[in-house]
Amino acid sequence: MPTNSQTQAALARADADFDAALARLFALLRIKSISADPAYAADCRAAAEHLCADIASLGFDAEVRETAGHPAIVAKAKGNTGARPHALFYGHYDVQPVDPLELWHRPPFEPVVTDHADGRKIIVARGAQDDKGQLSTFVEACRAWKAATGELPIDLTIVIEGEEEVGSKNFVAFLEANKQDLAADFALVCDTGMWDPNTPAITTALRGLVYEEVKIKAANRDLHSGIYGGGAQNPIRVLTRILGGLHDEHGRITIPGFYDGVKDLPPEILDQWKGLGLTAETFLKPIGLSLPAGEDDRLLIEQISSRPTCDINGIVGGYTGEGSKTVIAAEASAKVSFRIVEGQDPAKIRDAFRAYVTARLPGDCSAEFLDHSNAPAIALPWTMKPLAAAKQALTEEWGKEALLIGSGASIPIVADFKRTLGVDTLLVGFGLDDDNIHSPNEKYDLNSFQKGIRSWVRILGALAVAKT
Amino acid sequence: MPTNSQTQAALARADADFDAALARLFALLRIKSISADPAYAADCRAAAEHLCADIASLGFDAEVRETAGHPAIVAKAKGNTGARPHALFYGHYDVQPVDPLELWHRPPFEPVVTDHADGRKIIVARGAQDDKGQLSTFVEACRAWKAATGELPIDLTIVIEGEEEVGSKNFVAFLEANKQDLAADFALVCDTGMWDPNTPAITTALRGLVYEEVKIKAANRDLHSGIYGGGAQNPIRVLTRILGGLHDEHGRITIPGFYDGVKDLPPEILDQWKGLGLTAETFLKPIGLSLPAGEDDRLLIEQISSRPTCDINGIVGGYTGEGSKTVIAAEASAKVSFRIVEGQDPAKIRDAFRAYVTARLPGDCSAEFLDHSNAPAIALPWTMKPLAAAKQALTEEWGKEALLIGSGASIPIVADFKRTLGVDTLLVGFGLDDDNIHSPNEKYDLNSFQKGIRSWVRILGALAVAKT
Repeated sequence: MPTNSQTQAALARADADFDAALARLFALLRIKSISADPAYAADCRAAAEHLCADIASLGFDAEVRETAGHPAIVAKAKGNTGARPHALFYGHYDVQPVDPLELWHRPPFEPVVTDHADGRKIIVARGAQDDKGQLSTFVEACRAWKAATGELPIDLTIVIEGEEEVGSKNFVAFLEANKQDLAADFALVCDTGMWDPNTPAITTALRGLVYEEVKIKAANRDLHSGIYGGGAQNPIRVLTRILGGLHDEHGRITIPGFYDGVKDLPPEILDQWKGLGLTAETFLKPIGLSLPAGEDDRLLIEQISSRPTCDINGIVGGYTGEGSKTVIAAEASAKVSFRIVEGQDPAKIRDAFRAYVTARLPGDCSAEFLDHSNAPAIALPWTMKPLAAAKQALTEEWGKEALLIGSGASIPIVADFKRTLGVDTLLVGFGLDDDNIHSPNEKYDLNSFQKGIRSWVRILGALAVAKT
Repeated sequence: MPTNSQTQAALARADADFDAALARLFALLRIKSISADPAYAADCRAAAEHLCADIASLGFDAEVRETAGHPAIVAKAKGNTGARPHALFYGHYDVQPVDPLELWHRPPFEPVVTDHADGRKIIVARGAQDDKGQLSTFVEACRAWKAATGELPIDLTIVIEGEEEVGSKNFVAFLEANKQDLAADFALVCDTGMWDPNTPAITTALRGLVYEEVKIKAANRDLHSGIYGGGAQNPIRVLTRILGGLHDEHGRITIPGFYDGVKDLPPEILDQWKGLGLTAETFLKPIGLSLPAGEDDRLLIEQISSRPTCDINGIVGGYTGEGSKTVIAAEASAKVSFRIVEGQDPAKIRDAFRAYVTARLPGDCSAEFLDHSNAPAIALPWTMKPLAAAKQALTEEWGKEALLIGSGASIPIVADFKRTLGVDTLLVGFGLDDDNIHSPNEKYDLNSFQKGIRSWVRILGALAVAKT
């Protein structure tokens, strides 16, 4: 069991080693591990091998393991005793595509430290936050413990996958097949955010994600609108008509049964949330907006964290090049996703969406669907022991009470860990709302990276003491 | 004035020279004169120079003339007397883009003669019909007259432009600037269709075209739907909602004032049209459809030729690559066109569309518009003398009464000729509904090409006799 002076020694070591930690993060960020695009498959493998070698150097039995997709890494600390709390740390080395590339101020895979408009130092690159920067805070904390004390304070298994950004489809099968190997008392994930740049947070509720692709087809070929216009069905017209009806004038989703099982927040939680001061001014103004766009009878904080939503993430059909073309396309498609909450069944939401589209198809049109994600919402047990230990450690590091918050984003792996391994997951992360993850100019505050490492150093020490 | 034996000699000459005519068409089809894409500017110029040289070889003073865009060709027959009827023939050497390229069975700029599924011989290439094949029927008819009789039977000016497929914007200024040079008694255009493969037609009414591009913008950057979903406005949601409302459940366009000035067909014309037997079975089945998609209280033939329509020709926004990305795009755009009819003012339709979109924009969203085309509908005078002459010539060539028909497509140049040069236009063409113009695998029936040449040989002879 670590002493307080051991934790202090590990913190000092982390500070002394910070420049080298940053250089190691940069090396990882330079690898173009875009999982969505098959053209980058070799880069994904290179990222896995790079991370695996680094983690092995910290005293782990580490292996790159094959999946049906991009490979995963499994690493077990050589010093595991079987008598200490055993954590399974999870991260992902894959990153989102970089388009539209022309909006990046610098090449996305050439990381730099630069100044944010308000003077904060930031690391800019695709993956700087999600999830290479975040997972590196944990790896660096392990390195600091090992260097300062010769050992880790708890038993530890690290698993890192390469398909989180494309729905972790193959990783779930991998989990099923490696249950024994990945057995632990609880899981740790560093892929979430802080409340603001000074206030740490633990995420205790996550929305789920149902992500569908729909393609509408009509004629057997593209048509000239001068010959067929008015007489032939136009798939873009059909698609816009159907998708344009997904929300009513109050911002509510119109799919029959969509809100079945959705509960209102307990009044005491709603009161707490009202006190957090999340307003359009603070949350939307930085992205150039001023008006909450969700259900008009809900607070903005409810719209983005406790209410289910629907977004069209992409749409394409017909002629989209320069100039004009008088074509009626043979098909048009869209990517549509739903953030779902506790009480909603992802399979039912998917089926309800498909039924909604199909019921609105005019004659001569067909619809094809592709399932990209199908993950339920998660609510973590407030009684979980590591939660209190981590909350205390974060509060000490940041000098400010750590908040327990809900998140609008999905981390589907949390449900998979519960189902396959039977473990709850502690979600601690250092992301900020303005990190531009999934967008051009993704960044991670240098302060998030440095104090993130220090936070994990303290949490590892605190977890050694906590009984799980 | 030509004798009947001169016409017969020219017809014989056209038949004897047909293989060479086909080779000349192939040479023209090999030039990638795509006007919409600036990458093909040099090919457009090459097509102009190629055609100009060929027409000059027929005894014309022919020149490539600069415009603000792709160049035009003006050619005046050296044998013009000033005492004979004077026709201005118009065509365009530019072609549509070829995407989606993967749906072509062969490279689009490597023409071949092959067999259609039903045994018809067809010429396959981009531009095989629209308009390289069609304009070549006229040029070859001139060649046959010249070779057989040493002269053309009427005075003739030929003008060929290179921007018809992108709205002829610079060509209109060119017309204005060259009124004197292009003066004629009437215009001839070969860019329309037959009634069916055995029935020739003259097009006497054309719909106009208003073509708009609209871009909706919301946040100042792409957003992660996990963080902002539900709270931030989504431009694709806004765009689909607005465009999805352009038609009501009866297929009528909902833009206020859209149908102002639109007249119903005279009952006798409607009766004639009913007798033509244009049905979903004959017209829609070949393209894989079965149900007329326009206003549900109108005949299919009205929907496609006498009623105004609206089509979304293209739409794009957000992530459209493989897989999934949980992004809320900063912007989304669509290309929307209206086929308009006599009585509708294109500027009013454009303004009404813009007002319709703007009125439906939620807060935080802006719309930008781009005007791609703005052409009124045309109705030709039935009393025009060359009409009767051409009708008679076509009837003789095809052994079947030539029909006078309306067309759903726009040929905006017809209005421009009337306004700038004061001339009416005779529209004779040999296209068929299954020619796939503007689509992959564009074709022109070999029979259309051969009998098209013969038709123009006869029409030129007949026009010499007709008083305009």
